Amino acid sequence: MLNIGVIGFGYWGPNLVRNFVSNEKCSVKMVADKNPERLKLVKKLYPSVNAVSGEDKIIGNPGIDAVIIATPISTHYALAKKALLAGKHVLVEKPITNSKKHAIELVRLARKYKKILLVDHIFLYHGAVNKIKELIDKGDIGEIEYFDSIRVNLGLFQQDSSVIWDLAVHDLSILDYLINEKVKSVIATGISHTKNSIENIAYLTLKFKSNRIAHINSSWTSPVKIRQILIGGTKKMIVYNDVEPTEKIKVYDTGYTMQREKALVDYRIGDVYIPKFDQSEALANLTKDFIRSILTGASPVSNGERALTIINILEGAQASIKANGKEVFLHENAEHK
Amino acid sequence: MLNIGVIGFGYWGPNLVRNFVSNEKCSVKMVADKNPERLKLVKKLYPSVNAVSGEDKIIGNPGIDAVIIATPISTHYALAKKALLAGKHVLVEKPITNSKKHAIELVRLARKYKKILLVDHIFLYHGAVNKIKELIDKGDIGEIEYFDSIRVNLGLFQQDSSVIWDLAVHDLSILDYLINEKVKSVIATGISHTKNSIENIAYLTLKFKSNRIAHINSSWTSPVKIRQILIGGTKKMIVYNDVEPTEKIKVYDTGYTMQREKALVDYRIGDVYIPKFDQSEALANLTKDFIRSILTGASPVSNGERALTIINILEGAQASIKANGKEVFLHENAEHK
Amino acid sequence: MLNIGVIGFGYWGPNLVRNFVSNEKCSVKMVADKNPERLKLVKKLYPSVNAVSGEDKIIGNPGIDAVIIATPISTHYALAKKALLAGKHVLVEKPITNSKKHAIELVRLARKYKKILLVDHIFLYHGAVNKIKELIDKGDIGEIEYFDSIRVNLGLFQQDSSVIWDLAVHDLSILDYLINEKVKSVIATGISHTKNSIENIAYLTLKFKSNRIAHINSSWTSPVKIRQILIGGTKKMIVYNDVEPTEKIKVYDTGYTMQREKALVDYRIGDVYIPKFDQSEALANLTKDFIRSILTGASPVSNGERALTIINILEGAQASIKANGKEVFLHENAEHK
Amino acid sequence: MLNIGVIGFGYWGPNLVRNFVSNEKCSVKMVADKNPERLKLVKKLYPSVNAVSGEDKIIGNPGIDAVIIATPISTHYALAKKALLAGKHVLVEKPITNSKKHAIELVRLARKYKKILLVDHIFLYHGAVNKIKELIDKGDIGEIEYFDSIRVNLGLFQQDSSVIWDLAVHDLSILDYLINEKVKSVIATGISHTKNSIENIAYLTLKFKSNRIAHINSSWTSPVKIRQILIGGTKKMIVYNDVEPTEKIKVYDTGYTMQREKALVDYRIGDVYIPKFDQSEALANLTKDFIRSILTGASPVSNGERALTIINILEGAQASIKANGKEVFLHENAEHK
Repeated sequence: MLNIGVIGFGYWGPNLVRNFVSNEKCSVKMVADKNPERLKLVKKLYPSVNAVSGEDKIIGNPGIDAVIIATPISTHYALAKKALLAGKHVLVEKPITNSKKHAIELVRLARKYKKILLVDHIFLYHGAVNKIKELIDKGDIGEIEYFDSIRVNLGLFQQDSSVIWDLAVHDLSILDYLINEKVKSVIATGISHTKNSIENIAYLTLKFKSNRIAHINSSWTSPVKIRQILIGGTKKMIVYNDVEPTEKIKVYDTGYTMQREKALVDYRIGDVYIPKFDQSEALANLTKDFIRSILTGASPVSNGERALTIINILEGAQASIKANGKEVFLHENAEHK
Repeated sequence: MLNIGVIGFGYWGPNLVRNFVSNEKCSVKMVADKNPERLKLVKKLYPSVNAVSGEDKIIGNPGIDAVIIATPISTHYALAKKALLAGKHVLVEKPITNSKKHAIELVRLARKYKKILLVDHIFLYHGAVNKIKELIDKGDIGEIEYFDSIRVNLGLFQQDSSVIWDLAVHDLSILDYLINEKVKSVIATGISHTKNSIENIAYLTLKFKSNRIAHINSSWTSPVKIRQILIGGTKKMIVYNDVEPTEKIKVYDTGYTMQREKALVDYRIGDVYIPKFDQSEALANLTKDFIRSILTGASPVSNGERALTIINILEGAQASIKANGKEVFLHENAEHK
Repeated sequence: MLNIGVIGFGYWGPNLVRNFVSNEKCSVKMVADKNPERLKLVKKLYPSVNAVSGEDKIIGNPGIDAVIIATPISTHYALAKKALLAGKHVLVEKPITNSKKHAIELVRLARKYKKILLVDHIFLYHGAVNKIKELIDKGDIGEIEYFDSIRVNLGLFQQDSSVIWDLAVHDLSILDYLINEKVKSVIATGISHTKNSIENIAYLTLKFKSNRIAHINSSWTSPVKIRQILIGGTKKMIVYNDVEPTEKIKVYDTGYTMQREKALVDYRIGDVYIPKFDQSEALANLTKDFIRSILTGASPVSNGERALTIINILEGAQASIKANGKEVFLHENAEHK
Repeated sequence: MLNIGVIGFGYWGPNLVRNFVSNEKCSVKMVADKNPERLKLVKKLYPSVNAVSGEDKIIGNPGIDAVIIATPISTHYALAKKALLAGKHVLVEKPITNSKKHAIELVRLARKYKKILLVDHIFLYHGAVNKIKELIDKGDIGEIEYFDSIRVNLGLFQQDSSVIWDLAVHDLSILDYLINEKVKSVIATGISHTKNSIENIAYLTLKFKSNRIAHINSSWTSPVKIRQILIGGTKKMIVYNDVEPTEKIKVYDTGYTMQREKALVDYRIGDVYIPKFDQSEALANLTKDFIRSILTGASPVSNGERALTIINILEGAQASIKANGKEVFLHENAEHK
């Protein structure tokens, strides 16, 4: 039985606790939060859990095997480092850190101490995303020509990082998971409607060596919640609408082909297919992956290396925005397996 | 009774003919098309109209007052110029030409010969767009902070110009119509999946002197048809979904405000309002505007100057795409009133 | 070349005229309407058509081969009878008449004089309905267990017949076309919110000898337009949403089966399939069927016998409503082939 | 601090426990379930709760103030009676019992022993339903002319009662809550596709003394989940779509009026308004109402009398179905306040 300590019982922490409490192979022993109101809630909901105010009691406790970090981004690096150095396995909220440099360090530490480092890129554990991956991997979709995502809503303005670190990060994790090619460069634009110059709207165009394009539209200032990804392949096209309750994925047997001789394009509009996918809660799947990785030593799906790839793009995109859309090239990251 | 001649009876021509035939203040006398099959159809549908193969019979006919040009973009300039020089009023399909230089020349000719030059930016005659304009002009929406459009479908790949000349042109006309500020610069990216290097997907970010941003997503390669514009104001936000049959406009009494002292943002999620709007056919409204302008000498809503503003942005965007997203500044156009 | 005369140029007449004018195998020679404004419009749109005020000029004209009747329901019987007696083929708007007795007489007259009698049950010519029929006929859906339709909107209150003669008539035509079993009995309820006791809302339950049920919900007083039919089969289930622009049909590989021994039900939720279907205009298909039937003597898809079956149910439903939902049994109609 | 005991930890029980555990004014002391697996889950999630196999330990425990019954319908009567006789307050799942006779007895017992009897008609605690009630009570909608609900999905076939006891019961509770007039009679039809003759599809028409109609469409055999209620008033109309995540209620400023002299109807299609409503969890509101009623002695919103009214209609509807749609009159229930 693995003993778990959780740091942070704010927005996402309670979901993590609920999932780890329900898992049979582990036991949530401690929860830390600085806010006494949150600690009171912990005690009310889970009378047998030890609710503490400081994270040191968790990290310093030799009975704790793994630490879950669900605190603001700017604190991730220091907490994760301390936990890894203390010999704990670590599950940290996305994004792993707010800089590539720090992300590299965490990845190295985890490798050095042979500890599991799982970053909560939750979409990698969604049934819908895994169904799309399965279709692409089987070759049903053909070569991916474009990936176009819109992820907007009236969202909580973060105080320490822009909308791309909060929303585009999801699209980048999905893109990296689905497509077997690294991003070559990024051209990004954005705007801040607040006085702190932190962008609340941003647009990313990602380029590849191949004739592929990706585009991500992120906003905290949309009146409606949109979660829609279009994926165009040479054989089929996918619409993934995550706001739909059940029919999230539509596969269109639709396409176009260049005629050899003339410069004309032929169209094909065919049937549509809505595949069934695994409906289990993504967080339960992530919980299982974390525990299984600890127990077997296997690398989790959403490991530190993958998180590092994503941070690399985020940093490039942020730099491009600040340089008015200048193309930023992402040199292949040496840390990546 | 105005006498009308129509050049081009392909995709859009029949709609124009149907509307001008139904209007009581004019009479469609001639239709020209190079394709004998199309001329046969003209004769079947309108036995009393003179169907001819060459446009010269129309432009050279002194009994014709106004010429409607519904031919491919690359032919617009030559045909419109010839018609203006022959003393005809001109209604030409959008975009007015494929270059700013030619657009300037047509605008000057129309002014010189005191002829009406109306460009078929059809959305300026839509009830929904005019309802949104009314709401903005009344001040209900507040200052416009962003304009975000997605206009994608599996569309006919044009052979002589990219997707922005076909689709983004609509968004630019709506943007220019709704917002009382000229675009300062454009950063655009795109990709061609055909061998002719003509982009079938493109993304435009438009910047302004004020703290405003516009973004346009255009594609001929989407499996689904999306026509959605989000407009964010300091007071309210609008979602304009043109694919909806009747409830196209939603006005959200939703917003956010910066707190003075702290850097925090306050949210407001309020009621939604779906205004009724004029449901008459946009093309019938355009038909009326063209005839009224000819009869009264007033400038039509969608006049040549406005078309020129749009061409200016299109040319800038095309240049930005070819320069990998370099920011292109649009100098204020001297021709614009 | 068949010569066509059209009686009635109100709401639906112009669509009929437009389709017959476009068809190459016939020529619309005359249009009759009592309203001088409508005749003026006929002349404006079709200068070569003879626009007359009385139907007798059409029916009495020996040069006319076929008469199209697009007038109010209460006039159908007299006009169609006169036309058949004058040796014309007849296309009449749905429903064929407002009584079973009159419908039987028209069917007999058409048979006696060997004339085509086509009733405009337009859905029998829709690509979507024909795709559903194809799926059912192939056995993909299994035995049909239920048919559940909702067809409501803010509709024009008819002055001479209730909502079931205007809306449920469509569902009955689709049901009869898709399902190879006659309705045994009908239980119907309804209400009139006007003073003329003509129902604006009605609910029909149709029973069959087999363990099948059909239900139809009709209303002129809904704020939204709904056109949705659910069809449940022992193998698959269909949702036909006619308000959707393209993805009208969804086939669910979903079902339930009784376990033999226990009284429990097993569920299966599977993939969904959205088949492509013929998008050509239904009215153009009907036009072709009418002309082909006249030229070849074959029975049209929507023939008088089928119309009679529908009238039989409508009369039964109306009787049931007036008798507070009493079950009305529909004796097999001797006229039906 | 009220002490709570819960009987039944199957489908709905865990939601009830979660809400009562979170409430500060009570403490969940015991949970009973016959299934050892479910008891194991209770212990895992709530280590401090006493998990027992038999309900008698709860009902017979003098330290327990209130009993929550979340077991199959057929057991409600016996358990609730025993609990009331033991001096406990009772919260019981809907429907209160499977017969009017038993419901009357429970209502009398609660009154006699001055105990709170709350029946979990959860929609009475939904923000959306309460917003609609507010609009109706203010007079914004005018006189209600019709109520039309469709509540279908691929649902769990119940073994001891038909679909109306499972689904239509919700619509009846909403109808009774919103409309200040008792149902006069019911005409119902249905079908069973299983061998136990328990209907899986049913249609109810409800009649009133006034010129009002209600219709309810219930099915466990629809491939899609539909939760849609149309409410037509003399001033406005409402569409309540409970499947929509946020914009559940649309108020249409749409209507029709009879012209005095002519029998014609005038239409009005106006704006639409989507009101914001309280988004708090319905079950949390119900939890609070139960506790407040116990502490203050006030009658809860969803009291036994209201539950009895609903049972009365359900029994009538079931009788009508079995009698092939015969109209069943519901005599005014003497127990109703």
